[in-house]
Amino acid sequence: MQMPDPDASILARKGHIVARLQEVLPKGAVISDISETRAYECDALTAYRCPPLAAVLPTSTQDVSAVLRICHEEGVPVVPRGAGTSLAGGALPTADSVILGVARMNAVLETDYDNRFIRVQTGRTNLSVTGAVEENGFFYAPDPSSQLACAIAGNIAMNSGGAHCLKYGVTTNNLLGATVVLMDGTVVEMGGAHLDAAGLDLLGVICGSEGQLSVVTEATLRILPKPEGARPVLMGFDSNEVAGACVSDIIKAGVLPVAIEFMDRPCIEACEAFAHAGYPMCEALLIVEVEGSPAEIDEQLGLILQIARQHNPVELRESQSEDESARIWLGRKSAFGAMGQINDYMCLDGTIPVTALPMVLRRIGELSKSYGLDVANVFHAGDGNMHPLILFDANKPGDLELCEALGADILRLCVEVGGCLTGEHGVGIEKRDLMVDQFDPADMEAQMAVKDVFDPQWLLNPAKVFPLASSQSRRVARLAAE
Amino acid sequence: MQMPDPDASILARKGHIVARLQEVLPKGAVISDISETRAYECDALTAYRCPPLAAVLPTSTQDVSAVLRICHEEGVPVVPRGAGTSLAGGALPTADSVILGVARMNAVLETDYDNRFIRVQTGRTNLSVTGAVEENGFFYAPDPSSQLACAIAGNIAMNSGGAHCLKYGVTTNNLLGATVVLMDGTVVEMGGAHLDAAGLDLLGVICGSEGQLSVVTEATLRILPKPEGARPVLMGFDSNEVAGACVSDIIKAGVLPVAIEFMDRPCIEACEAFAHAGYPMCEALLIVEVEGSPAEIDEQLGLILQIARQHNPVELRESQSEDESARIWLGRKSAFGAMGQINDYMCLDGTIPVTALPMVLRRIGELSKSYGLDVANVFHAGDGNMHPLILFDANKPGDLELCEALGADILRLCVEVGGCLTGEHGVGIEKRDLMVDQFDPADMEAQMAVKDVFDPQWLLNPAKVFPLASSQSRRVARLAAE
Repeated sequence: MQMPDPDASILARKGHIVARLQEVLPKGAVISDISETRAYECDALTAYRCPPLAAVLPTSTQDVSAVLRICHEEGVPVVPRGAGTSLAGGALPTADSVILGVARMNAVLETDYDNRFIRVQTGRTNLSVTGAVEENGFFYAPDPSSQLACAIAGNIAMNSGGAHCLKYGVTTNNLLGATVVLMDGTVVEMGGAHLDAAGLDLLGVICGSEGQLSVVTEATLRILPKPEGARPVLMGFDSNEVAGACVSDIIKAGVLPVAIEFMDRPCIEACEAFAHAGYPMCEALLIVEVEGSPAEIDEQLGLILQIARQHNPVELRESQSEDESARIWLGRKSAFGAMGQINDYMCLDGTIPVTALPMVLRRIGELSKSYGLDVANVFHAGDGNMHPLILFDANKPGDLELCEALGADILRLCVEVGGCLTGEHGVGIEKRDLMVDQFDPADMEAQMAVKDVFDPQWLLNPAKVFPLASSQSRRVARLAAE
Repeated sequence: MQMPDPDASILARKGHIVARLQEVLPKGAVISDISETRAYECDALTAYRCPPLAAVLPTSTQDVSAVLRICHEEGVPVVPRGAGTSLAGGALPTADSVILGVARMNAVLETDYDNRFIRVQTGRTNLSVTGAVEENGFFYAPDPSSQLACAIAGNIAMNSGGAHCLKYGVTTNNLLGATVVLMDGTVVEMGGAHLDAAGLDLLGVICGSEGQLSVVTEATLRILPKPEGARPVLMGFDSNEVAGACVSDIIKAGVLPVAIEFMDRPCIEACEAFAHAGYPMCEALLIVEVEGSPAEIDEQLGLILQIARQHNPVELRESQSEDESARIWLGRKSAFGAMGQINDYMCLDGTIPVTALPMVLRRIGELSKSYGLDVANVFHAGDGNMHPLILFDANKPGDLELCEALGADILRLCVEVGGCLTGEHGVGIEKRDLMVDQFDPADMEAQMAVKDVFDPQWLLNPAKVFPLASSQSRRVARLAAE
């Protein structure tokens, strides 16, 4: 993946820039020695690496504002970073950029159980948001697989989901308000703790904007009362089509399971070998979970089992104990780890209309054969978010490139059936060249015009989201216009 | 309320403009005779009236695009109109503007039960969206009181809610995608039928923007499976404080009623006299409704009744039959009509944090005394949306002005406690001068800058939302810059 040449005039001013940053930040909050900046050279897309000019670790919105004001004045690009768990290279530095890491900004600022919200600094990890309220019987709903490590800042940047978003929605459905800092240092409040916020709703534009428009420093999040209990049921089918039809029928029947996870045969085999979850060996497996009081669980599962039976399942097993439930989920949650044991793999992220699933899986199978690379599929049937895993051999010359080409074809397929390039991982650098497959030139122009408004000099999170040539020529044009 | 002087050059070109509109629209779709344009001289805020230059009744997005392109070229303001049920003057014409009414655009374009959405033209009424899917067991959730008459176009413009938004959210939570036409005629698609739409999310900015940014011609709406049943319980309390505390405890306990409606004594008295709903005479009444299967209803109501008992209710009555449920709701739904029997009234619309309710009601009582005008309160405890009704005598000189001054004080109070000027009626012309109480100059500037982007000549829905002086000087500045 090509990255832009660093701006030599910035590299030449490194000492001056670092000194200015040190003036406004506490001791130890500015990192500029190459032995230390290397810690920020990549995120979880480790194939691409580049140490930044410097990294700063602010502890407040005021700090962030001061940093951005200086970088704006000096014309230095800034790469915002949450916990660095991006699989799309969303926090990859350039050599002339300052990494702005929010990891030290992890305070709980306010909890309000009556009005059901929590306000946190965005460096706080996803799971520790729930940690702050669970003693009082509440939780924060979005649950990406990386929830132990990933930060709310990154969840907002990528509009992350998780297994339970069928019932609770993705980040944008659980984000009530935000404090954001624009590239020139201006602090802006958006939304608020209550349903009807005043003025134009710009929160949706910020959520999912991948650090292109602003740095989100504080977030007001909806918290929900913990359900009394939950119970999964395992369903095995002898074709993807039948499993897909069963998902549709469950949704149509008016029950709202908290999660419907879909795994195909390669995925089932790998997970079972790794976690011994007791999965049946079949073509397609569903994990359907419902929650509520024991009476509600019994009633919902009764209806779901009745629907499943109409599809002739090869296996239909309601969990009988907490232990069994934990084992069922362990299998699913270790899918990525299980794949890693077998092979190198690339995890894709795209969305499709739920009804297109059988057709898309059939086509992925054909592509997989023609490229000669195995693909395993896990799918959040809730938001139509697919995570195909392509297996390859990193030591075999050309295999990574083949894998990337197959990945691009699969994502193009998602777009073709009416879905999109990304569900929750974002575009980052990984998919920036595929944007033209999703958007026509007028769409791209409109998105870049929004970027112009928020970040006129194109300094925030450079070389991401838009094709490299587009963002570079845009930046040059904007600078010339000033 | 002052309106801008009409642009004489537009009035002089009326014949030419009407002829151009007739060229692109079917016969009968352009209305220019004063005897007919008078039908569009006001909306439900009938105190203000002004016949438009002309009215057009397009039947497609292409028609709307053609109309806007012509008006853009001719520099003629356009006032979009749904069903004309705005209580805030959101569709009030100016004498030099063209009313663009979408009432003939009421087709269902697509229904998809598997993926749970319906796509409609936005002139369709709220209730007839449910009408199109109820045979298949589905419904559209937002339910403003005017749902029999109001159009989806207006629901989107004002981000309308309703009694059931505690569980299902307001319009923005149920709007998946939209086709909008910009002032220059450009057609733009936003969002889509599935959870993760591609690109920047501009849908939130459009929803609630009161026709200032674009004309929404088609909408993709989430539909939900109809619950098996529903049952309300009536709770009477001897103070607003205790009723407010009961609402908080119910929400904290983790039950999610589908509606919690709050009425104070003046409102209870008027409704009971009108509808004979069997309401107890007390200080504060709650209607709490739950839905689901009979088992779910019993379980949820069991917990809710247990919580209510801890607050020493003076009445606690679970509905025993469909008939009784209907009568309980009839009382609440006829609140406005009941008030109209007693007196002239003005219906306010503001939001507050739910927890601030007792304090706000106490303060409204004080204001009511000092102005010498009675105020009755109904409150959607779900989204914190208050509808204070101020009673006055339209035939008494000065009483309307007194009523408007009291209304402004009550809305300022909403802002002071952390709420906002409008819940679902919008700002329109009614509250445009109060915007400066909610927003500081930088906020106002930012909102007007967004308007600049979408509608550079400030032609869409003139004289609304922003204080008249601000929008007029903005328009002049923009024209000078071109």
